[in-house]
Parts: sequence; C-alpha cells; structure tokens
Amino acid sequence: MTIRYPNGKAYRQPSHSKSKSTKFANVNFGDRGMSLEAELNSSNTYYLENDIAVIHKKPIPIQIVKVDYPNRSAAVIREAYFQQASTTDYNGVYRGKYLDFEAKETKSKTAFPLKNFHAHQIEHMRKCLAQDGICFVIIRFAVLNRLFLLTATDLFHYWDHQADGGRKSIPLKDIEKLATELHYHINPLIPYLAAVDKLIEG
Amino acid sequence: MTIRYPNGKAYRQPSHSKSKSTKFANVNFGDRGMSLEAELNSSNTYYLENDIAVIHKKPIPIQIVKVDYPNRSAAVIREAYFQQASTTDYNGVYRGKYLDFEAKETKSKTAFPLKNFHAHQIEHMRKCLAQDGICFVIIRFAVLNRLFLLTATDLFHYWDHQADGGRKSIPLKDIEKLATELHYHINPLIPYLAAVDKLIEG
Repeated sequence: MTIRYPNGKAYRQPSHSKSKSTKFANVNFGDRGMSLEAELNSSNTYYLENDIAVIHKKPIPIQIVKVDYPNRSAAVIREAYFQQASTTDYNGVYRGKYLDFEAKETKSKTAFPLKNFHAHQIEHMRKCLAQDGICFVIIRFAVLNRLFLLTATDLFHYWDHQADGGRKSIPLKDIEKLATELHYHINPLIPYLAAVDKLIEG
Repeated sequence: MTIRYPNGKAYRQPSHSKSKSTKFANVNFGDRGMSLEAELNSSNTYYLENDIAVIHKKPIPIQIVKVDYPNRSAAVIREAYFQQASTTDYNGVYRGKYLDFEAKETKSKTAFPLKNFHAHQIEHMRKCLAQDGICFVIIRFAVLNRLFLLTATDLFHYWDHQADGGRKSIPLKDIEKLATELHYHINPLIPYLAAVDKLIEG
C-alpha cells in the first residue's frame, strides 16, 4: 500500500521512524501485489501529470475501532483493522470513459488462479460494465515477468464456469490468446492505456 | 465516516464494544459532512441495488505507522493518522459517464464558504473535467435544510475569483440561480442523478 501525497508522489517511511511493533514497511500483505501496485501507481502519476488520464488507486478501507485525540488536529487511530474492499482497487476517467480495474500477481508459471479475485469484485465489475464502464484486470505472472490486460468479460467467462466443473484458473495459453500483453516502458512504466485505446476503438 | 459491508449496508458499531479511549462513534470529524454523507451513501446504495449507477464513497486515506499482527489473519493497526484526500470523495459510472463529486455542508444561511473546498480537490475536478468527466458538488445549507447540485465549472468561477479580490463564498442567491436544487425523496433519499441527467442532456 503506497501512501501518496496530494501531488501523487509516494510517501516514504522516514528511516528514523522507530517503534516497538513491526513497522508498516515490513508488513507482508500477501497477494496484494505490492510491486505491481507501485508500478501502476507510478504509471498513473505519469498519466495524471501529463493530462492523459485521471486514475487513482482507492485507499484501503479500514475499520476504525479506537481513536485517541490528544488535541483536535492530531487524532491518532489506536485500533483499526484492514477490511476487504467492496470494489476494485483502481478507477478513474480517460477520454470520457469510466475505467475500473483490479491488478493481481501470481507466482504460477502456467495459469492464473481465479481465487485471486473475490466474488464482490466480480459483481462490482459486472455492475460497472452494465453502466458502460471499461473494466479489466491487469495480471502479472511474477516468475515469468509477463504482464497482461484481460477484459472483465473474458474474466467472467472463466469465473462463471468454475461453478459447473470448470477450471479454477485461467491457463496462460488462453491468456496469451485473449489478453493484450503489456510491455514495460519508461514513461509510463506500464503503458496500459494503449491497450485501453484498443478496447475503446474496438 | 460510514463503514460499509460489501453489500452496501452500513456497519454499526457493536454496542458492547468498550475501550479506554474515545470510541470512534463519538469522534466529531468537523466539517466532513457526516449526515449529508450518510444520506448520499444511502442514495448510492439505492442506485447500486437498482442497477441505476455505480457510485461509491472512497475510503478515507489513512497513514499507517504501526501494525501488530498477533496472527496472520488479524493484523491490528496500532498507530495511524487521518490524511487529507487528494481527490474528491465520490466517483463512479452512470450511463457511460464518469461522475466525480464532493459533498459539503455549511451552517451559514446566506452563502457557501469556499474554504470548504481544498485546492487539490479543485485541481482534481479540473483534471477530471478535462477528460470529459461530469464533475459537481452537492452542497447543503444545514440550517435552511436546502440542498443544491452545483457544477464544477460554476464552482471554479468563484474559486478563481478569490485570488483577484473576489468573495470568499458563493452567495445563496447566486446558487439559487446557477445550481439545481435537490429535494429529499424516499427512494433514493437524494435523487441527484435526475440533476445529472440534465447535465448530460444539456
């Protein structure tokens, strides 16, 4: 989870920060796709600063239980829990279109496990698609270092077939056929809007 | 700040919850527009459940400093701070359009103070507008219980004139002329998409 300043620059944990508990920078949030997320945030900052698109990662929803406030302007959250998001992580506007997507990584070399997605994320994308939003997932095969943009419609096909005895993952060979492969670039790092252009124009 | 389940229902603080610190339910976050927010969340839930639009309030951004995790599945945030959001609070998709807005209340009976908005929110709305998003603010005169939808373009006019000796607020009589007045309804509570229809069609 990258904390961002209003200008989009990433917040860096000050190196002098000390605490008795595990520091946030060292926490492993498992399959939240930290490094893919950082790359997408950097790409989105590029798109924003160059007036190409306005895409932001949503803050992680937190359930707040206890707040201390020694003074009015510095309330300290003392007990809170990570919540499961009810939507996807990224949304915004590009060329008059609403964009909505999720980014996920796998260590598999052969298939993308569908358990990376949650039912409510799928449901959210279905509802956005019904409103003519552009919905997709950006998936990375971390070991292969290959990156793809797969439309939500293609994802739904595999998701829906799990129930009637279908596979629990999308084979890489299917992804190679259905998705648009994304190649790392300099600015932006992940030029995914070029693939979105094809979706808009297709 | 209403915490929401994935189905959009508001999370209620369990009444048996006790702590030595001030409980979250009692914290006053000042001008964050708690009750207008609750009304908009309820309206958005109605729009979502009836497949009319997908509009969500973004989670409040939190700067996390310290996390304890007694076990892997129950990480506890032990020190965190509220951050100023770099965008507006609400966005989503409706009829193929990207919607982006902020909701604010004032106790004034005569004018809406511009200090309710932050420069980065204005900047964000400008960038969304440049991408053909639909941007506006929903403002409530709490004492008068009057509610208006004012376009971002009209807001910018007043915002930009502050610098060259203009007013620091928008007179109610100007808002009555420029904005669309919203009237409370049953379902949804605040039928603001009817005013958005006029923006789309106008």
